[in-house]
Amino acid sequence: MSLTLYGYWRSSASYRLRIALNLKSVAYDQKPVDLKEGEQRRPEHRDIHPQGFVPALADDQGVLIQSPAILEWIEETWPEPALLPSDLRERARVRAYAAVVGCDIHPIQNLSVLQHVKSEYGQDAEGVQAWARHWITRGLTALEAMAQADDRGGPYLWGASPTLADIYLVPQLYNARRFGVDVEAFPALSKADEAARAHPAFVTAAPESQPDAPEDGH
Amino acid sequence: MSLTLYGYWRSSASYRLRIALNLKSVAYDQKPVDLKEGEQRRPEHRDIHPQGFVPALADDQGVLIQSPAILEWIEETWPEPALLPSDLRERARVRAYAAVVGCDIHPIQNLSVLQHVKSEYGQDAEGVQAWARHWITRGLTALEAMAQADDRGGPYLWGASPTLADIYLVPQLYNARRFGVDVEAFPALSKADEAARAHPAFVTAAPESQPDAPEDGH
Repeated sequence: MSLTLYGYWRSSASYRLRIALNLKSVAYDQKPVDLKEGEQRRPEHRDIHPQGFVPALADDQGVLIQSPAILEWIEETWPEPALLPSDLRERARVRAYAAVVGCDIHPIQNLSVLQHVKSEYGQDAEGVQAWARHWITRGLTALEAMAQADDRGGPYLWGASPTLADIYLVPQLYNARRFGVDVEAFPALSKADEAARAHPAFVTAAPESQPDAPEDGH
Repeated sequence: MSLTLYGYWRSSASYRLRIALNLKSVAYDQKPVDLKEGEQRRPEHRDIHPQGFVPALADDQGVLIQSPAILEWIEETWPEPALLPSDLRERARVRAYAAVVGCDIHPIQNLSVLQHVKSEYGQDAEGVQAWARHWITRGLTALEAMAQADDRGGPYLWGASPTLADIYLVPQLYNARRFGVDVEAFPALSKADEAARAHPAFVTAAPESQPDAPEDGH
């Protein structure tokens, strides 16, 4: 099966999929979609992803959309190494980390929301950043409390090996830094993030290492 | 196992859990948390849900948070009747419906975001409603296109029996109506919503039937 990932180097949902596929040692080609140039709104891309979003993952049977759904599909299609614990309550807890990022933080600081805040409410760059920082800080505060309450002994969020929780955490902290959030204020998260970013699957998935990343990484 | 659902009658994430538990014929007690009175921010509730949100689902082993995670836990704990198809690609597609609602619509029109739009950008009731309608309309447009492309013959979104897709759809259309979105503009969604709302599991889960709903249902 040949996989093609339609993504963007700094899209955090694309980043999640790259990490997951790398952790599973599943090969994929990349077709970058330049969000800065609006390529996601072109008819060619809408044929792939009707919402005009990234990421989408295509194989010979069709196209999958929505990173939370695709991550579960990856886990079900290639069960090893597992991205979720086997215990049902632990699975629910790891998925709760994913949902705090995937529902309560990322969608509210996503590009389309920021553009709307700018155009509808006349916010300048600093106003838009303040909006993003507000929601990121609120969400990371919740995640940090969860990580401290759970404390599995590290190095990753859920213990000895990376899980879905780390797959959501690392791209979200990447975004947090972009928007000027002090991630050191979240020590349990920073520590897990640092450990994960040293893992080869995360290194290869890093935004600055993607084919469409600009040379200066910004 | 005795289950307690901490929720609010018109919280759509609480509504999702009620539907899922009802579909599985799993009994649960309800502990309403009055979001209008700010009960979710009180220390007693933060002991249950550190984010100060609803819903939370408690049993004798602890508390689960985040409705996407809890729904998967319900599915894994009580596999029948299944809320997801057995085919892996179909599962990914049904979960994509859930994610469009759970990530791309609901979090952006959630109460805390609306309150922030009001306080930060001086929006009045109409301005706040316009914000909500914008994101709901955008998301429902995507969902309608998906439903029309998939057309499984009804009556539910994914065919003959309710799935996770309906569990997310019905509470989101309830919200859409609250904010003045014309749901008839989305014929495939409206049709599936009407069928689902006639199902006993959905009837019992309806906001106006909950113990904390006001007598006039508003």
